Amino acid sequence: MTDLLWPGDVRAGDLCTDASIVAAMVRVESAWLAARGHQSKLSTPFSVRDIAVAAEGGGNPVIPFVKLLRAANPDVAAELHAGLTSQDVLDTALVLQLRETSSLLAESLDRQVVALARLAGEHRGTRMAARTLTQHAIPTTFGLKAAGWLQGVLDARDSVGAAADLPIQLGGAAGSLAAPTALAGSPAAALDLVDATAAILGLPARPPWHTARAPFTRVADAFVTCTDVWGKIAGDVLLGSRPEVGELSEPAAEGRGGSSAMPNKQNPVLSILIRRAALAAPPLAATMHTAAASAVDERPDGSWHVEWATLRTLARRTVVAADQTAELLEGLRVNAGRMAETLAAARPGIDAERDKMGGEGSYLGATDELIDAALARAEEKPC
Amino acid sequence: MTDLLWPGDVRAGDLCTDASIVAAMVRVESAWLAARGHQSKLSTPFSVRDIAVAAEGGGNPVIPFVKLLRAANPDVAAELHAGLTSQDVLDTALVLQLRETSSLLAESLDRQVVALARLAGEHRGTRMAARTLTQHAIPTTFGLKAAGWLQGVLDARDSVGAAADLPIQLGGAAGSLAAPTALAGSPAAALDLVDATAAILGLPARPPWHTARAPFTRVADAFVTCTDVWGKIAGDVLLGSRPEVGELSEPAAEGRGGSSAMPNKQNPVLSILIRRAALAAPPLAATMHTAAASAVDERPDGSWHVEWATLRTLARRTVVAADQTAELLEGLRVNAGRMAETLAAARPGIDAERDKMGGEGSYLGATDELIDAALARAEEKPC
Amino acid sequence: MTDLLWPGDVRAGDLCTDASIVAAMVRVESAWLAARGHQSKLSTPFSVRDIAVAAEGGGNPVIPFVKLLRAANPDVAAELHAGLTSQDVLDTALVLQLRETSSLLAESLDRQVVALARLAGEHRGTRMAARTLTQHAIPTTFGLKAAGWLQGVLDARDSVGAAADLPIQLGGAAGSLAAPTALAGSPAAALDLVDATAAILGLPARPPWHTARAPFTRVADAFVTCTDVWGKIAGDVLLGSRPEVGELSEPAAEGRGGSSAMPNKQNPVLSILIRRAALAAPPLAATMHTAAASAVDERPDGSWHVEWATLRTLARRTVVAADQTAELLEGLRVNAGRMAETLAAARPGIDAERDKMGGEGSYLGATDELIDAALARAEEKPC
Amino acid sequence: MTDLLWPGDVRAGDLCTDASIVAAMVRVESAWLAARGHQSKLSTPFSVRDIAVAAEGGGNPVIPFVKLLRAANPDVAAELHAGLTSQDVLDTALVLQLRETSSLLAESLDRQVVALARLAGEHRGTRMAARTLTQHAIPTTFGLKAAGWLQGVLDARDSVGAAADLPIQLGGAAGSLAAPTALAGSPAAALDLVDATAAILGLPARPPWHTARAPFTRVADAFVTCTDVWGKIAGDVLLGSRPEVGELSEPAAEGRGGSSAMPNKQNPVLSILIRRAALAAPPLAATMHTAAASAVDERPDGSWHVEWATLRTLARRTVVAADQTAELLEGLRVNAGRMAETLAAARPGIDAERDKMGGEGSYLGATDELIDAALARAEEKPC
Repeated sequence: MTDLLWPGDVRAGDLCTDASIVAAMVRVESAWLAARGHQSKLSTPFSVRDIAVAAEGGGNPVIPFVKLLRAANPDVAAELHAGLTSQDVLDTALVLQLRETSSLLAESLDRQVVALARLAGEHRGTRMAARTLTQHAIPTTFGLKAAGWLQGVLDARDSVGAAADLPIQLGGAAGSLAAPTALAGSPAAALDLVDATAAILGLPARPPWHTARAPFTRVADAFVTCTDVWGKIAGDVLLGSRPEVGELSEPAAEGRGGSSAMPNKQNPVLSILIRRAALAAPPLAATMHTAAASAVDERPDGSWHVEWATLRTLARRTVVAADQTAELLEGLRVNAGRMAETLAAARPGIDAERDKMGGEGSYLGATDELIDAALARAEEKPC
Repeated sequence: MTDLLWPGDVRAGDLCTDASIVAAMVRVESAWLAARGHQSKLSTPFSVRDIAVAAEGGGNPVIPFVKLLRAANPDVAAELHAGLTSQDVLDTALVLQLRETSSLLAESLDRQVVALARLAGEHRGTRMAARTLTQHAIPTTFGLKAAGWLQGVLDARDSVGAAADLPIQLGGAAGSLAAPTALAGSPAAALDLVDATAAILGLPARPPWHTARAPFTRVADAFVTCTDVWGKIAGDVLLGSRPEVGELSEPAAEGRGGSSAMPNKQNPVLSILIRRAALAAPPLAATMHTAAASAVDERPDGSWHVEWATLRTLARRTVVAADQTAELLEGLRVNAGRMAETLAAARPGIDAERDKMGGEGSYLGATDELIDAALARAEEKPC
Repeated sequence: MTDLLWPGDVRAGDLCTDASIVAAMVRVESAWLAARGHQSKLSTPFSVRDIAVAAEGGGNPVIPFVKLLRAANPDVAAELHAGLTSQDVLDTALVLQLRETSSLLAESLDRQVVALARLAGEHRGTRMAARTLTQHAIPTTFGLKAAGWLQGVLDARDSVGAAADLPIQLGGAAGSLAAPTALAGSPAAALDLVDATAAILGLPARPPWHTARAPFTRVADAFVTCTDVWGKIAGDVLLGSRPEVGELSEPAAEGRGGSSAMPNKQNPVLSILIRRAALAAPPLAATMHTAAASAVDERPDGSWHVEWATLRTLARRTVVAADQTAELLEGLRVNAGRMAETLAAARPGIDAERDKMGGEGSYLGATDELIDAALARAEEKPC
Repeated sequence: MTDLLWPGDVRAGDLCTDASIVAAMVRVESAWLAARGHQSKLSTPFSVRDIAVAAEGGGNPVIPFVKLLRAANPDVAAELHAGLTSQDVLDTALVLQLRETSSLLAESLDRQVVALARLAGEHRGTRMAARTLTQHAIPTTFGLKAAGWLQGVLDARDSVGAAADLPIQLGGAAGSLAAPTALAGSPAAALDLVDATAAILGLPARPPWHTARAPFTRVADAFVTCTDVWGKIAGDVLLGSRPEVGELSEPAAEGRGGSSAMPNKQNPVLSILIRRAALAAPPLAATMHTAAASAVDERPDGSWHVEWATLRTLARRTVVAADQTAELLEGLRVNAGRMAETLAAARPGIDAERDKMGGEGSYLGATDELIDAALARAEEKPC
């Protein structure tokens, strides 16, 4: 999958593509078969595109998918999907893909943590002007700036971690496990089937959450918590890359940062694309919340349907931005000389608070201790 | 193009697909060549996917596109793109696709107007309970309800019409027409080139609007104005389709409205999918506005980049919902009997205001006159 | 009214305050009385706070308001509000306040147009570096930059103008004019009453639009179109005010721009507060659209209720930002010397396109002609 | 504080009012004095309105506040605010108010849990039609429906709990504790001062988070997670309150649910107002995220400023909706008779799945076990 209008999209590979979603739906159907002791190796000789085209009829892709899957697997046609509802299959398939997303994010976040810990440590003594409300404020160090980014990345990592434990969603037609109970012979046996299916898929169990959508909004919020901090970092890099500032620059890469018109340009493309993602993400999470708030009945009339593409878009874009941010931080170039020059040029104004406070010397306060605190937190096991 | 997770997406055909955007970019480059008297028939033997993958390097797809286009058209390689900047090509390509979008919307809106005018007229005498704050209020007619929908659709048609006249966006590297002036020999000649290019593309001219993005936010707002009214209509149909109400039902169609679990179900799928679109659209328009508000400098660092996919998604989904709404309204089934029964059952409470006001008889007020007003407006030439 | 947490709020005066809304509701009730030939001078010896507290009972403030108004005006108690529904009074009161908002915006926009036309003209020859994607691109002039801002402001002025003509909203309990018809004796007489009421209030007539909310979303979109362009301008001023750039600075004012900690600071406060408004506005307009899309029945169950505070907040903030932007532009200080220095320092890179294009000299393209185009548009009568 | 246009606002009392925010700012300044061993009982003989009006000068209310506070407390004027920056005071004041918010929410959520546990238990045997995509699906019980609501409320309670532990925000001018270090004599002593101040305020310590805003976005997301589930519940009550359904009704209360025009009406006002809050909340949280993503430098140019009013609005509205939802659930009236009638009337269609699955009897699946699971979770200590 590529997206011409979302440069960098290719970094997300096949995550949440139509084909991956269908493959995840196959996994769900297969696990449900296996939990019941049926043959669960399924042939899938059908076209994803055919499913997509046919999805409008019932309002979701599961209906044509099941029809094709049954046709392709006549031996288990009767057992296939028995007891499930479309939402069970699609929700759990999304869960599988979102867990994959969280896992990819965790890797990128770890790379970011490592890169930021290195930057914070190496630039502990790299002095620069702190800027507040666009103006020079007091001296600081680039190490502390990196430590601040690191704290934000650690917050994001905590959010992703807390939201990653998405459970199976399986409740039958109306969340009562009626059909699974009929299949299994008793409520207890039905619940066991759900547990077994969850175990096969590597998911925690949970009662059906067809219309209690906090698991999905929480993961969406976690993704946006990531793009928030990456947007903050990218914004700082973009400001630092302005030629009048010249304190930061992006890692060089073959073919990156050119212009179609101006041969002189070297554009901070990674940061631009990260910032783009950070601008787009909050309204997507808002859509998830509005959907959750409108989820009436035992399956709602549109609120459910709007979640799928929203989650997919948010997941892919977050993974892309995660990887771009990791690359940015791993290769970020820090121009300590320019930082020192700017700081010197900002004197005496930038020393005004020091002088007022009777401070002395470099006026760096607790920068070292705050860097250490960030580094220590980075060493902790992620919660 | 199909989208597994946006059932009905296929209705938008190839509008704003990667291939269509590239084709529109070719049209822009070709028009620019033609305006300058060059050979403008261009070979395009390249892969859209290759462009998409390479787009990250410069942060937009135009850079690799131009490279491939030059390689494929060696005779005009030097003239190709000369004087343009990436934003000129991509913005104007989006303009072309958005005008196509507006044109498709206009067709669907016209179909909706016809269907609603018919419903309003035919059901002038179809009495039903008006509902406010979920409760029975006073009697009304379904004709007036349809006339209210019609007024909303006419508002949307006006919005689309007012926003449809998107102009060319062509200003060179920084919106000053510097390179076009160098090419053409004088500012006046450069402006003539822009005018000629616009004329070839069938677009109005306008000074460069690289960072004055109201033309794009206006069209996004118009699209959302459409999905708003369709969401309102779909919401009413969904309520009317509830079995306890039973006043409205969707047109029947082969393979539509089934359930993967429950053979008894006939789901109002069109309305569900329309409502889905109405939930998703407002945050996308908000993204366009946030981007416009952040469009610093002569080309911004992320705000521009977030527009492309946002506009594409909004355009396709609006076209899909437009067609679905037209189909819904053309085939909407009105159960006048159930309406009458509910109205009768709501008595005497529903007559309370009439009795308080000393009204008489059916208490239908100016329903006829208001229907006539809507029908008359529908006959006016769209503004 | 003041708002501690929205500095500058005081600039909006009493626009859309609780008291102003109540006063507008009085005007609506009074006009309705006058249109029917009743005594329409009303006593209002009640507390706005009492109305606010009692508003929850019926879900809107009109119910306790009417009760208090009747008690205070016993001579016309029976005629008061007769035939109206709460939504008629509150919607039309909001219309009155929004028209006042549009009028205030028009004044500020006119001031901005004058200031920008002056800046564009005066700085026609003030050369500076154009910046794209944060980097120096080619030379331009500050006059052209101001002309670009001006085009955006003119777009916003057009939007406000097009949306300003908000009509009366009066339809009785369910938009059928049933009670007004009972009062007036015939539908035609009821429509005449609506027209007469509209005329007294200075509003255009329109059939009831209880659930066709495009008039309100259009005005919200127009307000956001304003904050978008002001956000763009503020963003440019903020970048230009950075000490490393130093090209622009805000007008000085007694007590403005100080810091609680750093005596050296002079912060670009107006621009900061304008940018704040631009960040907050798009989601508020999105709320209006989501409400419009959810407006089921003849009066919806929450969608209507969410509009009031949203519109009020958006209106006040837009008026505040309008005035701040006018003040900013009227006093903006342009440091042509720094612009020239930066441009000189950007050489030879910034001349790369010129050299590639075979351009000569200052490479300013059509800056003069584009400035003239903006100035000419500014002279046109606003549409 | 009352808000005419947000009926029910009075339920939030003085939470986050201008006066409460100022009082919280006084607490922060006082704690900072006390931590340093100064006299910390402060006179506050000033007008909140004066602060609000003067707030525009420096872009935030802290600057005029400190000036007035110093004038009113001449004995500690020099020590007051020494070492702090405006953001320390305002952020920590907001933290104090948000913790109060979380505490109020926890109380309401506990009430909701109790009410829902009761409903789930009492209506374990109350059969009704499950509805999916607006249509009758299979039989279920109202007990399971209440258990589903309960699960959502427990998710919300978990979110509020996880976000409630907001830390102090105190870093001095640029987050380096430079001035506190100058005051205290060493970085370690400065950190001790921060810890002591946090302890006095009852807050956890944390390194400065001036531009790492996840603590605030997390709390905003938690609030929206609440309004989401309340919106879902309100939506179900609104549908159940429709006269054609008649399964649920709101608790009666003196003066509630009346209409200004129609004496027959009994409107489900609580649910309407809850749904209103659920529609408004997601875009407010999106604003918080967009602000976080744009938080450049050591204090950003607008992103910080937009948070204050957004958080206040979100906090008050969430508290109002919390209390309304608790009241709604505590008094919800369940019409088991109508549920049974509807279920009977839905036969035989509603039994189609049962018959297909070879199920028997009531086909209630694991409703009992799922109710028990929800009740058990309700008994657990909130995380």
